[in-house]
Amino acid sequence: MSEKKEIDIMESVYDKNDKAASQINLSFTRNGIFAVNVMGAPGAGKTSVLIQVIRRLKNVASYVIEGDIEADFDTKLLKSMGVKAVQINTGGACHLDSPLIGKAAEELSLKNGVLFIENIGNLVCPAEFQIGEHVKMLISTVTEGSDKPYKYPLAFEKADIIILNKCDLLPYLVFNEDFFMKGVRALNKTAPVIKVSCKTEDGFEEVVEWIRNKQKLQKE
Amino acid sequence: MSEKKEIDIMESVYDKNDKAASQINLSFTRNGIFAVNVMGAPGAGKTSVLIQVIRRLKNVASYVIEGDIEADFDTKLLKSMGVKAVQINTGGACHLDSPLIGKAAEELSLKNGVLFIENIGNLVCPAEFQIGEHVKMLISTVTEGSDKPYKYPLAFEKADIIILNKCDLLPYLVFNEDFFMKGVRALNKTAPVIKVSCKTEDGFEEVVEWIRNKQKLQKE
Repeated sequence: MSEKKEIDIMESVYDKNDKAASQINLSFTRNGIFAVNVMGAPGAGKTSVLIQVIRRLKNVASYVIEGDIEADFDTKLLKSMGVKAVQINTGGACHLDSPLIGKAAEELSLKNGVLFIENIGNLVCPAEFQIGEHVKMLISTVTEGSDKPYKYPLAFEKADIIILNKCDLLPYLVFNEDFFMKGVRALNKTAPVIKVSCKTEDGFEEVVEWIRNKQKLQKE
Repeated sequence: MSEKKEIDIMESVYDKNDKAASQINLSFTRNGIFAVNVMGAPGAGKTSVLIQVIRRLKNVASYVIEGDIEADFDTKLLKSMGVKAVQINTGGACHLDSPLIGKAAEELSLKNGVLFIENIGNLVCPAEFQIGEHVKMLISTVTEGSDKPYKYPLAFEKADIIILNKCDLLPYLVFNEDFFMKGVRALNKTAPVIKVSCKTEDGFEEVVEWIRNKQKLQKE
């Protein structure tokens, strides 16, 4: 196949996805749903962060669409906590797309609250696909090293909020915070960067406050 | 576009890649090159592991093709150590493919030794593409958590050797090694799983011995 033809095909895939994403986003907004696309590398602690956040969102209904290639540990864990959650297994696909979200959202009967969509653990592909979200939350970790913004720029560029997780491990490893922040700010001038630890539970009040404020703005 | 047409297109992409991979592999073998496809999540420590391994390979020529979306820190570091290394920046692509490797290999004038091809940090897509390698080395870490084989099965299934990195951090986190190994063995009966730490430098003698043995078998 010619390169030109391959590019045309990819553009058609993005185009089809983005149109579906706009429709899903409109439907979320109409139903009072604030949708957060949660992205991060494998093992960044996406579900652990969501658990901390959902616990603190108290009088706000929380929903989770959990994306994984295989397995459903995280959905089972969330459900055991009383969270309305639904699992998407992509089989092999490396990111969630809008048609998948459309179907999963129907199962949850969403109404007035915050929907977290936990994407596949991958710092590359998820950043390329809108899935109906109002904001993108990127979860990075100190264990991954401080060069990640330089190596995986799109995810950092597109994030509306950046969570730096596993900060309890900082005493035991080399993480150059200045270098990390310089990389982030070269790509993204505005997203707050919030240091957290799911072990010590530090930092989550600030994350929750940010979500509440953004949700309010969307309602108005 | 119809789903059938999309599937046909993907099959054509895989097919074209696999044909090129076979040719590259043949050319490596003819030139006495043993090629290792190094895969792992972002921040798994792929370059750090390679540095430890290459230092111990002593009387064997080592070459590195370094894959990143952007940036070239790792190639600069390797070159500063005297390693023959070349950078591939994919721009946005989430994995290396055979045409990219073909070009990079030409630049290195490969002859009699071990070529490490460090793939993009991604536990999903790289496992789907042959790039001319003789073996696949998967680098997993204790900081990513023990459920990774269950969530990202293809990479674990296809690996010829699995390195479990960052074991110096085990005292500070929860990692269920039995659960991890059960997940690995359900997918992969034979790959050795070797625990290492780039900080304490433990475990690398065993990795190097495995590479030397495999390289010998390939020569015979």
